[in-house]
Amino acid sequence: MDLLSLDNPVFRVYVIAASLAILKMIGHAFLTVYRMMHGHSGFLNPEDLRKTPLNPQPDAQQIAPNDYVERARRMHRNEGENTPLFLAAGLLFVAAAPPLWLAVVLLYGYVAMRLAHAYAYLSERDHEVRATFFTLGVVAIAVMSVYALAAALSH
Amino acid sequence: MDLLSLDNPVFRVYVIAASLAILKMIGHAFLTVYRMMHGHSGFLNPEDLRKTPLNPQPDAQQIAPNDYVERARRMHRNEGENTPLFLAAGLLFVAAAPPLWLAVVLLYGYVAMRLAHAYAYLSERDHEVRATFFTLGVVAIAVMSVYALAAALSH
Amino acid sequence: MDLLSLDNPVFRVYVIAASLAILKMIGHAFLTVYRMMHGHSGFLNPEDLRKTPLNPQPDAQQIAPNDYVERARRMHRNEGENTPLFLAAGLLFVAAAPPLWLAVVLLYGYVAMRLAHAYAYLSERDHEVRATFFTLGVVAIAVMSVYALAAALSH
Repeated sequence: MDLLSLDNPVFRVYVIAASLAILKMIGHAFLTVYRMMHGHSGFLNPEDLRKTPLNPQPDAQQIAPNDYVERARRMHRNEGENTPLFLAAGLLFVAAAPPLWLAVVLLYGYVAMRLAHAYAYLSERDHEVRATFFTLGVVAIAVMSVYALAAALSH
Repeated sequence: MDLLSLDNPVFRVYVIAASLAILKMIGHAFLTVYRMMHGHSGFLNPEDLRKTPLNPQPDAQQIAPNDYVERARRMHRNEGENTPLFLAAGLLFVAAAPPLWLAVVLLYGYVAMRLAHAYAYLSERDHEVRATFFTLGVVAIAVMSVYALAAALSH
Repeated sequence: MDLLSLDNPVFRVYVIAASLAILKMIGHAFLTVYRMMHGHSGFLNPEDLRKTPLNPQPDAQQIAPNDYVERARRMHRNEGENTPLFLAAGLLFVAAAPPLWLAVVLLYGYVAMRLAHAYAYLSERDHEVRATFFTLGVVAIAVMSVYALAAALSH
């Protein structure tokens, strides 16, 4: 059987988890945009201070850092440090023909940990809470990578 | 037929769009490097202030932020928030066996929108113009992800 | 033969190089975390200034930029600008059925160049040294992308 095909139940789990992870990261881009538009602040580019339909009352302060927007940007950046690795590690892992239960744990586990991480980050939970969910997500990526590495070396 | 093979016309469209998107993002890295070297400024590392062949006249101001270089870095960063998701979403989408016309629209459409986004960013067009091309690119990624998710769930 | 399968020696080389590249980038995340925890500084979030088990003696200075931590963050960010492109370009390249020797050179070459880049960055070598390893890594990605693009266009 072709492992990288929807006929393979493990690949289906990968496609579901990967598409959810992609949509979540897109959500982070739009959270940042929403917070910029809502507060009319936290802009990055000088040209965004022009008077336009989306910015009817420009003000030089709009380009100053603003923690309401910066928090959304930090969340987005953290996602960008993890999710592209997850998307690739998941594919390598599927190609190594893992058991379905392990794929379910690691692939859905990553998505669940990133949802929990976003909740902890948005609600400003203690560093320990955020770091725990971050670490568990990274562990899922690392286990999948080591699994694929071992399979390729022993094939 | 194996969907993830050059024998599949949809996969060929993906390979063409994906390789162009990768080469474009590499171009952003080199635009940043060019602007740093051209203006001898916008450096990030203290060691870059040493006198070396590439920096014959070091000056502490070279490590201060410089908008000419920072604009190239913001463009690169924006690409990095989108293109890795595009590369993965495109692969999931191809594995879901979409019609060729839809693959052409979404895969080439993303590349076209990112070229337009780069033009708007470099030429400092109004926020609305840049945001429109950004949003259309993200929509292409989101549609491909939802298409793949639906195919995996209904398989 | 299915090219994207462990039965293909070129794909095995890709899986080995890609999993090592993923594990290396995870290492950069943990180097940043280690440096934050070790120096109790370089934090990014206001809530990280709370008194908790990991931060028994909070101090407002902990959220100020700190070059010991910022260097690890710059290394991580540089990795994030390159490794996701490598992971995708490598897959496109394998699907284009390259000769094994070229895959070995480009795929293992990228990993070797990124290890050398990390060494040059950590040990604060001159810009020219770091830039050379960076450029060679990018060239590997570009060659794989162009190879895949040419194969898709001529198929």
